[in-house]
Amino acid sequence: MNSSSYGDSSPIVAHATAIAESALAIIRTSGQGSIELVSRCFSPSKALLHSPGNTLVHGWIRDAEGNRIDEVIASVFRSPHSYTGEDGVDITCHGGIATVRSIMDLLLQGGFRSALPGEFTFRAFMNGKIDLTRAESVMELVEAKTDIARSHAVRRLSGALEQEIRQIRDLLVSALAATELFLDYSEDDGVSHIVAEEALAAGAPELDEEAAGILPDRESVEEARGRLERLGRSYRLEKLYQDGATVVIAGRPNAGKSRLFNRILKEERSIVTDVPGTTRDWIEAWISVQGIPLRLIDTAGLREAEDPVERIGVERSRSVLREADAILYVVDGERGIAEEDRAFLAGGGEPEGPPLVPVWNKADRRPAEENLLPVSAATGAGVTEAMDRIAALLESPGGAAEPRGLGAMTDKGSLGIASERQKRLIDQALQAVRETLDMASHGLPLDLIAPTLREAVDSLGEITGEVSTADILERMFSRFCVGK
Amino acid sequence: MNSSSYGDSSPIVAHATAIAESALAIIRTSGQGSIELVSRCFSPSKALLHSPGNTLVHGWIRDAEGNRIDEVIASVFRSPHSYTGEDGVDITCHGGIATVRSIMDLLLQGGFRSALPGEFTFRAFMNGKIDLTRAESVMELVEAKTDIARSHAVRRLSGALEQEIRQIRDLLVSALAATELFLDYSEDDGVSHIVAEEALAAGAPELDEEAAGILPDRESVEEARGRLERLGRSYRLEKLYQDGATVVIAGRPNAGKSRLFNRILKEERSIVTDVPGTTRDWIEAWISVQGIPLRLIDTAGLREAEDPVERIGVERSRSVLREADAILYVVDGERGIAEEDRAFLAGGGEPEGPPLVPVWNKADRRPAEENLLPVSAATGAGVTEAMDRIAALLESPGGAAEPRGLGAMTDKGSLGIASERQKRLIDQALQAVRETLDMASHGLPLDLIAPTLREAVDSLGEITGEVSTADILERMFSRFCVGK
Repeated sequence: MNSSSYGDSSPIVAHATAIAESALAIIRTSGQGSIELVSRCFSPSKALLHSPGNTLVHGWIRDAEGNRIDEVIASVFRSPHSYTGEDGVDITCHGGIATVRSIMDLLLQGGFRSALPGEFTFRAFMNGKIDLTRAESVMELVEAKTDIARSHAVRRLSGALEQEIRQIRDLLVSALAATELFLDYSEDDGVSHIVAEEALAAGAPELDEEAAGILPDRESVEEARGRLERLGRSYRLEKLYQDGATVVIAGRPNAGKSRLFNRILKEERSIVTDVPGTTRDWIEAWISVQGIPLRLIDTAGLREAEDPVERIGVERSRSVLREADAILYVVDGERGIAEEDRAFLAGGGEPEGPPLVPVWNKADRRPAEENLLPVSAATGAGVTEAMDRIAALLESPGGAAEPRGLGAMTDKGSLGIASERQKRLIDQALQAVRETLDMASHGLPLDLIAPTLREAVDSLGEITGEVSTADILERMFSRFCVGK
Repeated sequence: MNSSSYGDSSPIVAHATAIAESALAIIRTSGQGSIELVSRCFSPSKALLHSPGNTLVHGWIRDAEGNRIDEVIASVFRSPHSYTGEDGVDITCHGGIATVRSIMDLLLQGGFRSALPGEFTFRAFMNGKIDLTRAESVMELVEAKTDIARSHAVRRLSGALEQEIRQIRDLLVSALAATELFLDYSEDDGVSHIVAEEALAAGAPELDEEAAGILPDRESVEEARGRLERLGRSYRLEKLYQDGATVVIAGRPNAGKSRLFNRILKEERSIVTDVPGTTRDWIEAWISVQGIPLRLIDTAGLREAEDPVERIGVERSRSVLREADAILYVVDGERGIAEEDRAFLAGGGEPEGPPLVPVWNKADRRPAEENLLPVSAATGAGVTEAMDRIAALLESPGGAAEPRGLGAMTDKGSLGIASERQKRLIDQALQAVRETLDMASHGLPLDLIAPTLREAVDSLGEITGEVSTADILERMFSRFCVGK
């Protein structure tokens, strides 16, 4: 691995907790000589320097003049028993902004360099502590907003996805090896030789000399196709659980949008999230509906502050509506369906538009009409049903209107993929597998089929990191947060 | 100590880092049985349960069904070698919101209760690990925004203030003991007896029988007065370093307020602070000027968005100006001093108003007049001088206009107090000491003087926590953040 930035094992430092007023904070270090470098600004210095791995040392961080910077607990890790596999010290200090800054500055002056995003995890990968699927799950875990997203990420962290990918790859390797052995590839083709050995070690089936022209071990390739298809399908839902979706509440003025917004927050579990730097001229909140994080936006303030002459149709073009993954359209039940409502709902039928759930508000005062879902912001009736309906629409593949409760039909408990990188490679592998089976079905010669099958094997190897280039790794880890 | 809420040693849990997306987070536990309770949802359970103190155990948090919640590092502390003095486990988990929530929920179901604000530090105090001045410094450290605030808080954390208070108290105890011995108090007065023994142990001077009517050991009381006066004076400045001050940029439209605001941010060190929940219709930023955290507010957007007919005098009454600790008033140098400027600057002379620093902007185009401080938002000239001027005004006792550089005259490096509670008790002690000296000077009998002197001793004892009631302690610790 040659990489100008990520490649070395020099001592690095980063704050690993959010920089905010809090009781405690963690400053993380790793790399060659990191224990000694920390001990130079630690008192008692020798206690830290000679501490065995996996121990805690209480003491003070001191600057070069001996001034006490903070009272801390140092967690000492010795290679290979650490997250990165290297020596390292995690400093648990007081959580003040000034304290974290002072200690960071001191360590940076003392020989550490700032860790790049994801560099700790990068080193864990490079030192063979985790594969790439587990590395990615670390970020997914940090970003998880609901318990479903968290539990799926944890399953990947514990190696379930890595295992699944390796098993699928073994199936293909087995078929590839059988194919190549059958073709009696030349002795000097090192790659296929290695693959063949791998396959024999994995117990590849005996070759049937009579089966020339028919793909050997076709069942393995077909099983791999099935499992790849399932993983590929899981992506959309995993992304939904991970990133969530934006639901915009729209409707005519005074239809009760803001009241409904507040009622939904009361009925559903709201999520505490910290989205720094957002400036908004609308009101929004994150809630969890059936495990899906939903960013709920109330456009009431936006709309009603503006020119009332403006046609409601214009609203559709607003940026906030354009970024909606679903729209909760509120009809004022007391006044009934107005011309603007019909225009909006008709526009909602356009095939590329987001799913639209129209609700009949104030249903406690006047019964719903035209099959609109009855809700009442005043009493809360129907609110959960409406939100479940939105969740079901978001979960269903086409996003088209389907009966409520579809969410229950999807396999929430199954293993899936949540990374775009993994999805791309699964798709590549799946395409190669399909082509392989297709070519075999058409009776094409095995020496034409084998390279395609090998493509699939390589794509899967790239998912776990067995086959990777420095470029790919660097791009992947640079999306991580600092301190991870 | 009887207290319904804080008093016990039952197992408590709290998140000790900010709840935000971050690499790592710490969940802190303490109390009887806490190691065993954590081990029940930890795998490998026995490794944790039998781990010696001050060690790190790697493993997984699991729920009752055995599902993996997160991969964590457990820091095991065994009594008395911990922050609280009790057994405890700090769980370092991944920093996601969902993860922290899940682990907290699991521990709360598993026998822990949520820690009250400051309860960990409260226990540290109750178990004799720290005195009250050090306990308070923990919060001061967390809230410190600049390096000066941090370094002062750390000095208190390391026990410097505790030592100073104890020394002052010893001076008074010595004088009180001498006085009481002199008066030959009755044998059954246990309290004064103890005080007398303390004093003799501390080497109280021999009593001069001839000195009846004159305060024995008067020099000690006078020395105590001097040291108490110094500590009392330090409070205003310490609070300024700790909490900072609000500086509002005001001036007529187009005087260059926003441009000056941005220039100040460039020239001075800006502070990253996280103030959740603030909704603002003005622009603000925190900067550090000579170690003072200044919240700088640009009112430009506010003013210019509104009715231009509005008189500038009205601006003074705006809430944002009412909360200003200092005002940077910008005169448009190109247009010169206008009628509104004069009205505002004249109003600034009112005695109860905040300090006002008028600057002549665009001084690069037209020289300053009427002794206004020349600045240029365009070139940056004079900006540091103007901010230093504001810092000096804030540091000076009256807040009145004093020459620049006064900041250098104040003793930034000296030990001070930053807590209102400490200030109140120092004031009480000081008043009692002054009355004592006054009464002695007027030749009042010692049996009238002794109780006043004892009041001073008790007030100082309350600062460190030697003399405290449950009420006082509970009120003090409840102001802490959770997890501390």
